[in-house]
Formats: sequence, structure tokens, C-alpha cells
Amino acid sequence: MKAVCLVSGGMDSAVALAEARAAGFRTFALTFDYGQRHRLELDAAARVASALGAAEHRVVKVDLSAIGGSALTDAIDVPKDRPIESMSAGIPATYVPARNTVFLAVALGWAEVVGARDLYLGVNAVDYSGYPDCRPEFLEAFERLARVATVAGTERGERFAIHAPLLEMSKADIVRRGMELGVDFGLTHTCYDPREAIACGRCDACRLRLRGFEEAGLRDPLRYAAP
Amino acid sequence: MKAVCLVSGGMDSAVALAEARAAGFRTFALTFDYGQRHRLELDAAARVASALGAAEHRVVKVDLSAIGGSALTDAIDVPKDRPIESMSAGIPATYVPARNTVFLAVALGWAEVVGARDLYLGVNAVDYSGYPDCRPEFLEAFERLARVATVAGTERGERFAIHAPLLEMSKADIVRRGMELGVDFGLTHTCYDPREAIACGRCDACRLRLRGFEEAGLRDPLRYAAP
Repeated sequence: MKAVCLVSGGMDSAVALAEARAAGFRTFALTFDYGQRHRLELDAAARVASALGAAEHRVVKVDLSAIGGSALTDAIDVPKDRPIESMSAGIPATYVPARNTVFLAVALGWAEVVGARDLYLGVNAVDYSGYPDCRPEFLEAFERLARVATVAGTERGERFAIHAPLLEMSKADIVRRGMELGVDFGLTHTCYDPREAIACGRCDACRLRLRGFEEAGLRDPLRYAAP
Repeated sequence: MKAVCLVSGGMDSAVALAEARAAGFRTFALTFDYGQRHRLELDAAARVASALGAAEHRVVKVDLSAIGGSALTDAIDVPKDRPIESMSAGIPATYVPARNTVFLAVALGWAEVVGARDLYLGVNAVDYSGYPDCRPEFLEAFERLARVATVAGTERGERFAIHAPLLEMSKADIVRRGMELGVDFGLTHTCYDPREAIACGRCDACRLRLRGFEEAGLRDPLRYAAP
């Protein structure tokens, strides 16, 4: 049993990869070099895939900066020091239009090539409620699309399952679950705006991560520039 | 009114772009550099976008060769001299897994950025019946996905329309319609296996194109190595 797993280098996708392994899948880790500012993620993804025993790890270049529209790929400032409560109000500047649609589409292509029918991704509807492509409706619509977009689906009636095991979990739940599954969070990278491999501690991603560890009563092994 | 139009450099997408213009859209032409062997397509796409008055033309790199699985991106031979009747039996080696899913996903992202709600592509269910992602069911499933994958869809209930004006047309119909719309087919590139910018005349794509011109009673302005 094979699964293609989206691995960004962040903590959520590391836990999702660990879930796929725990479910008995041979994992095919897929990472995107999409013109993101935070390229340290790519190194983190390779470390995570290796540490969690992925059968293969591929990095696919998808130049989303060519279409612009996000602080992560475009010349828009990364928001800092925002209260966590305000993050879910409206769409943050770090939203990359159609990112998960693009990533799942490539994952679906690789799944066809290697013969996997299961796709794992670490999206989370609690902390990222502002992102439309992190919602259950989106994942269900993609499952339906996968059936008609593939040879396996159209010729042999096979189904693809999109697994988002962290969808309903809080960041603290994710930290705890990752610990149970043996994820080394020190290998992961989360910050949207790191300086020399040190996390800023102030962007939305750092703040959510730090609060997750705090609420789980655990210490984040990463180094931060700001408390 | 804006439309994002997939423009490959081939004749079908050139006619689809011309249809978008004829329908009154300001067109945003989108081309993919996806590791295809036939890179002459990219030059053709730029010529076509310019000749048909696209407001913008972007080339997005998406390295589908990293996931392999196709004669167009991988070390698999391009089939030659196949009878046209046999092309629709089974999936040809030139099928790129999930290619249209990936392309439409990026197009959807760009549509969000520029404020377009209409996407045009030149897929055709008649000649390419072997490709799952050239079927009406696929396009409908993608429309449903677009509604839940975007901010415009989830926050404001807006709909995206996927237009495939050539879906039910024969190659001869496409040639005739392109002529009506003023498409210069001499700017387009079709061959899967060209040598020094000259089409082979023997791959599936060349054979379908040549038969289309023949059935339309028109002369293809391109040069071919084989009759």
C-alpha cells in the first residue's frame, strides 16, 4: 500500500507523514519548490522525509511566483505580531491562491505514476480557517475530481482518498500527536520570515506554532529570534 | 471581463484563445514550461498570445518531469505512424498524468489574482478520447472544485466557468473555426517530436493535425519532414 504525502518541511505535514506511516503505507514524500521566500523549508522537508522513512522524496518546482498574489511568493510584506484571534478573520496576505489545488494536482499525477490511491496532507481547518483550500468541502471536491481526472478512476472505477488527519486538530493536539508518533520537531521549519535559519517568532506561523507547544505543555526545540 | 486562457502553442489552444477574445474577454494567456520535450511550443505560445492580442502572457515552470510517467517528459519513445483509429484505444504514452488538473489549478490561482472568473482551454474530447482529463465530467468536477478552492467562491459565492469551446469539435471543425476567427496556424506548433523546428509528420499529434486540414480542405502552412 502506497501513499503520496505532501511534505512541506513544516510540523503539520511531518505529523501527517508520520500518520501515513503509522497507517501502514509505504510513503512517497512530495515537496514543492514554489518560489517561496522561506526556502529553508526545502531542507527541512528532506530531513523530515528521511527521518520518517519515506520510500522516495521528490522536490517538484512549480513557479507560483509567476502568478503573484501572495506575501510568500510576491513583494508583499509578511504580517508580524498579529493576535492569533485575528488570524482567522479574512484571508491573510500569506494565502497563496490555489496552492493546495496545485499541490494536490501534482500529487495526484505522481500517485498515478507510482500506483498510489491515497494522498496525505497536513492541512488544518482550525488554525487556518482563512484559507479556502484547507476546508473539508475542498478536500471532498478534490476526491471527486480525482476520480474523473485519472486513468485509474475513469477506466477502472478506482477511488482516490485524500487524507487530512490533522484537519480538526488544534496545534497543541498536533504537537502531542507528533510526539506520540516519534516526530522530531527539531527537524521541521515553520517561520514565514526566517533570518539565517533562525525563526522570527513573530509571523502568524511562528505564533501559532509557539502557542501549540505552550498549550501542549512542551518545549519547542527550535531557536527563535523573538520570544 | 477577464479570462485566463491556457495557451500551449498548439492549434487547439490558439483557437480557444481566439474564442475567448471573440466572446469579448480581455485575455490572460498562460503557458506551462513543464519539462516537455517539445520546447518549441513555448515560442509558439508567445507568438500566438501576441498575435491574438492577449493582455498578458505568463510562462509558469511546473517540472512535471520530476514525477515522470509520460513520453512527453520522460525517457519513453514517442509513438509514430499509428493509425488514427487506434489512437483512442487505451491511454497513449504521451499522456501526462494529471496534466490538465495541474494546469487548471495554476490557471485558477492566476484567475484569483487578476480577478478573472472564466478559464478557457482547448481540450477536445473527440481526438483525445484516451485522456481522462479531456472529458466533460472532468471539466464539470473542476468547476465544482473551483467554487470551494477559492476566496471568491467561498467568501462571496462566485462561480468560475471552465470553457472548453472545442470539446465536441473534430479537428477539421477546429481548422475551419480557427480560420473564421483569424487564427494564423503558421504560428502554432503541434509536433511531439520535432527536429530543428520541422514537424515530424508521423507522431499522433502531427497525424491528427494533418488529417484535420485535409478534411477541412485546407493546406497546413507548417513544414513537415514526412508527408
